[in-house]
Amino acid sequence: MLQNINIVIAGLGTVGSSTIKLIETNKKIFLSKLGLKINIVGIFAKNKSKKRNFNKNKYAWFDNPLKMIKQNNVDTVVELIGGEKGIAKDICFQAIKNKKNLVTANKALIAHQGYNLARLAEENGVSIGFEASVAGGIPIISTLKKSFKGIKINKITGILNGTSNFILTNMYEKKNEFSKSLDEAKRLGYAEQNSNDDLNGLDTLHKILILSTIAFNKKINLKDINYSGINYLTKADIFFADKLGFRIKLLGIGSIDKKKIRINVAPYLISKKKELSNVNHNLNSVIIEANKNNKTILIGEGAGGDPTSMSVLADITNLSFENYKNFMYGVSCKDLKKTNISNDSLGESLFFLRAKVYDKPGAIAAITTILKNFKISIKSLFQEQSNKKLFNVVILTHKCKKKIMDTATVKLNNCSYIKEKAIIMQVLHV
Amino acid sequence: MLQNINIVIAGLGTVGSSTIKLIETNKKIFLSKLGLKINIVGIFAKNKSKKRNFNKNKYAWFDNPLKMIKQNNVDTVVELIGGEKGIAKDICFQAIKNKKNLVTANKALIAHQGYNLARLAEENGVSIGFEASVAGGIPIISTLKKSFKGIKINKITGILNGTSNFILTNMYEKKNEFSKSLDEAKRLGYAEQNSNDDLNGLDTLHKILILSTIAFNKKINLKDINYSGINYLTKADIFFADKLGFRIKLLGIGSIDKKKIRINVAPYLISKKKELSNVNHNLNSVIIEANKNNKTILIGEGAGGDPTSMSVLADITNLSFENYKNFMYGVSCKDLKKTNISNDSLGESLFFLRAKVYDKPGAIAAITTILKNFKISIKSLFQEQSNKKLFNVVILTHKCKKKIMDTATVKLNNCSYIKEKAIIMQVLHV
Repeated sequence: MLQNINIVIAGLGTVGSSTIKLIETNKKIFLSKLGLKINIVGIFAKNKSKKRNFNKNKYAWFDNPLKMIKQNNVDTVVELIGGEKGIAKDICFQAIKNKKNLVTANKALIAHQGYNLARLAEENGVSIGFEASVAGGIPIISTLKKSFKGIKINKITGILNGTSNFILTNMYEKKNEFSKSLDEAKRLGYAEQNSNDDLNGLDTLHKILILSTIAFNKKINLKDINYSGINYLTKADIFFADKLGFRIKLLGIGSIDKKKIRINVAPYLISKKKELSNVNHNLNSVIIEANKNNKTILIGEGAGGDPTSMSVLADITNLSFENYKNFMYGVSCKDLKKTNISNDSLGESLFFLRAKVYDKPGAIAAITTILKNFKISIKSLFQEQSNKKLFNVVILTHKCKKKIMDTATVKLNNCSYIKEKAIIMQVLHV
Repeated sequence: MLQNINIVIAGLGTVGSSTIKLIETNKKIFLSKLGLKINIVGIFAKNKSKKRNFNKNKYAWFDNPLKMIKQNNVDTVVELIGGEKGIAKDICFQAIKNKKNLVTANKALIAHQGYNLARLAEENGVSIGFEASVAGGIPIISTLKKSFKGIKINKITGILNGTSNFILTNMYEKKNEFSKSLDEAKRLGYAEQNSNDDLNGLDTLHKILILSTIAFNKKINLKDINYSGINYLTKADIFFADKLGFRIKLLGIGSIDKKKIRINVAPYLISKKKELSNVNHNLNSVIIEANKNNKTILIGEGAGGDPTSMSVLADITNLSFENYKNFMYGVSCKDLKKTNISNDSLGESLFFLRAKVYDKPGAIAAITTILKNFKISIKSLFQEQSNKKLFNVVILTHKCKKKIMDTATVKLNNCSYIKEKAIIMQVLHV
């Protein structure tokens, strides 16, 4: 029995074009193996005249995307424009209001409006596929929703931003400063011209929030969470972390303990013996800790047309085969309880500290005394001349609480020996 | 709306007991989040008197498993006994014939009888969940079936046997000989008393065959495939591979090229820069290459009660929610075409060669001349005294075809300078 499914696609950039190409290439497989015919009954992009790498004339072009999605024969609306506001938002909400399934890669929109979209979808009896919104080609959302259904998840740890990971890898491998690696990322297409949100941690925050909502089934407010990115790191941090046996990765971490949710987004040190330390270049990765801390790790390409379009397509086909209730976050949004967020980290961990210090007698003593006053003990310390007047002091602490380290850092930064704000990073404990 | 599902469990060893404990622990989550009540309406194991880590008296014990599964109210039969023959096989076939869904962790049975089970399930309108049969806690089967639905998969590479991986890691980390690491694996519960099938590659073969059937949608005959394991490796192989920048891992590899399926099961050398090289101890891992060679990697625990029971439970809950046709291999078994298997590897690769050679003049010349005659060029060579009369010659070749290397190896093994069969391993190219 042949199943026909009619889709419209809004947004024809890298992911949109790849999705169309993938549907064209795999037409035969769909027909013969799945008994599925995917018909593209409308396309829209902001710029009609732009050259695309598929034949536009094969599809009905719409200048008005809302008119496009309102066609009676449309089953699924695919939104690949992106952005939490504007036309992308209108398309997503209108699709659901018009009782169409929605497939989207729009992480900013899901992070901000996911709960509202989910509620609307339940009211209208349609489903939302958003596999492509987190970690491009990694099927993390369906894994959480299907393979961990009814299992208690304790923690999600992810390398979720390909741009940041490319830059950190490049700084490590090529011994580049941040700005040079950023230029290289832009040149090679791994960074947008304006990649602030990738580098300051906001994009990672959006993604870990989406994953945490599914994993912990709580309603999490984006505004409650602090985050930081990699834009203040230097070649020296990469170098000293390496010397100590670590790689630096920008992580999003969500965890639940006694019903308290913790979300952290920051660069972390990861031992070179751990799996995540080898997740390099533009790769993404997610660790799921569940059921007495069993670890399951997924690694794959986090962005780009080919990997992301696979996730878009998986959503399109799965939605068309599923006739049971497919809740966006795995449970009805009535059951997503509001929760308080803690920005503190769970338990204790080692910390990396690098301070640029004036070359004066007593500098090291001043720093170590501050740490001693907070009962933070030192696992290893070394110093290295940076230039005539300055040197780097690098300390790896023994385990301590993040709160205590944060307070000690304020003291350190007020210390007259220190030239600029000390860099503090947590060592990942998995 | 509450959904009730009645299951029976045959087999109460590590996985069976963990499954019952997991269902008991998560009862509340099932009810509140999924609206699902899982009732265990019968249990069976070969030995009734054995002590178990759950309260047997809470459940109806059956001495006759076939009578147990034939109860009218049973929705799903969970088979966790294992083995391709005997009672496990009877239970699985009888379950389906009696129109019950089947959930099983039985890789040997699926590898031998999967096709017959699938056909029978289609005839009887029931589904088979076998997530737990490959790579314990890693949701690889649902990933292949759902997230790569309609996507062309080119290659599957897996570390699929936890016992072998534990031993290889132990030999590396502790500098142990094979037999000592095997003893340690047994002592720590990572190896059965008789673990021949784990060590000779057969278990890996079963698993890569199951994954390849789903990935390539072909009917593959187990008997057509050569395989080897780790039972002939020595400390010296681990040591020299390390010196060359590699780790040794037992891999199952399935690939498709021009409709020709290749299945390889053997120990491979993997560069320490690659993700798989850091998959250690009892961890398993699978790499999926699809859609123009995008790589997706999954890593997790491959065996043990807690991880495997998660997969069993995911199958139980997913089967009870799915009311559409859930083909065992993703497509109807009418569409699984018979295919010829090649044991050759695709393309060319580097090879590692270690030969134990008598300490006589001309030995190295003899070996290198044989390689030269086959146009195999040498990337690096070193020799090391093994004892008074013998030394190890270790060669890393440049790229060549496996077929040519195999023929050269026959010549080498006939060479009078060589004491025992040379060890040949391929370097993984991913």
